[in-house]
Amino acid sequence: MSKIKYYWEDLAVGSVRDLGTVTLSAEEIKDFASRFDPQPFHVDEAAGRRSIFGNLCASGWHTAALAMKLTVENFLNESASMGSPGVENLRWLKPVYPGDTLRLQQTVVESRALRTRPDTGLVRSVWDMFNQNGEQVLRMEGYGMFRRRQPATAEEIARSGNNSANGP
Amino acid sequence: MSKIKYYWEDLAVGSVRDLGTVTLSAEEIKDFASRFDPQPFHVDEAAGRRSIFGNLCASGWHTAALAMKLTVENFLNESASMGSPGVENLRWLKPVYPGDTLRLQQTVVESRALRTRPDTGLVRSVWDMFNQNGEQVLRMEGYGMFRRRQPATAEEIARSGNNSANGP
Repeated sequence: MSKIKYYWEDLAVGSVRDLGTVTLSAEEIKDFASRFDPQPFHVDEAAGRRSIFGNLCASGWHTAALAMKLTVENFLNESASMGSPGVENLRWLKPVYPGDTLRLQQTVVESRALRTRPDTGLVRSVWDMFNQNGEQVLRMEGYGMFRRRQPATAEEIARSGNNSANGP
Repeated sequence: MSKIKYYWEDLAVGSVRDLGTVTLSAEEIKDFASRFDPQPFHVDEAAGRRSIFGNLCASGWHTAALAMKLTVENFLNESASMGSPGVENLRWLKPVYPGDTLRLQQTVVESRALRTRPDTGLVRSVWDMFNQNGEQVLRMEGYGMFRRRQPATAEEIARSGNNSANGP
C-alpha cells in the first residue's frame, strides 16, 4: 500500500474529488458480461442493435465496478480506509457504449464520529459518473470508514448520535 | 434469448425464487480485484492475512456481480425483462473467502403498474446471498421492469399512484 495521505479528518463535507477517467472497449464489455451479466444486449453486437439500447452496452455492474476501480486507484489506496458497509441509491441513468470515456467525481456529503469505534470515522459520499458528452451514466451514495488521526473526544461522540459502524 | 416464461403478472408479491449457487476460487477473486478493486486484501494472500479480514477476500463488487450472474442465468434470461433503473440498500454483511459457495435467493416485495407505460410493470425484489455456513454475505433491493401479458387497465394505473419507470 502507498503511504497514507488521507485520514478521516482530511475528508471534509462538501469536498469534491476528481477520480479520473476510464475508456471501455467492446471486448471488455463482452468479457465482463459473459462472466457476470450474460443478457443478450451485453454480450452480442447484433442483439444490442435489436434491443431498446440500440447498440451493445455495458452491464450496469461493469460500470459500477469501474467506478470502484477509479476510486481505489486515485483515492482509496492512499487513504486509511477501513472498508465499506454498503451503498445506497445506485442508479444507472444512461447506457454505456463501446468507446465511451467515463469520468468520475466523488463528493463528501456527511462525516460522523462512531460511538463504537473512537479511532474510526464514517464518511458518506456521492459518486457521479459522466460520459464524454457530459451525460450522467451512474450515480450512487456510499459509506466508508476511515481511521482518524486523533481519537474522537467524548463531545464528538455525543454529537454523532447513537450510530455504529454496521448501521449507518 | 430463451423462450420467455415470466412476464410481470407471473412475479407475485411474496414469491421466493432459489437462484442457485456459485463457488469462487482465489484466482477468480484476484483476477476481478486486479481489474476493478485492487485493494491489497483483495489481490494478495499475505496482505489479506495481515488485514482485518484475516485472509484474501472478494471485492464486494465481485460478490454483487455474482448475484447478477445467478439472477440472469436462472431467471432474467427467461423473463420479459426491460432492464433495471437501480438498486437500494446494497450491504456487504460478511467477507467472502476463496472456496466459499454462495447461494442466492430472490423475494418479490412489491409490484406496480406504471402510469407512463401500460405495457410494462415494475417489480421490487430483495436478494439475499448466504455462504456454505448459512451466514448472510450480501443483501440488496432492486427494481426491475417487465413486459406485461395484458396492458394495465385504467383502474390499475390509478391505484399505482403517480410513478414512472425512471423514478421508483
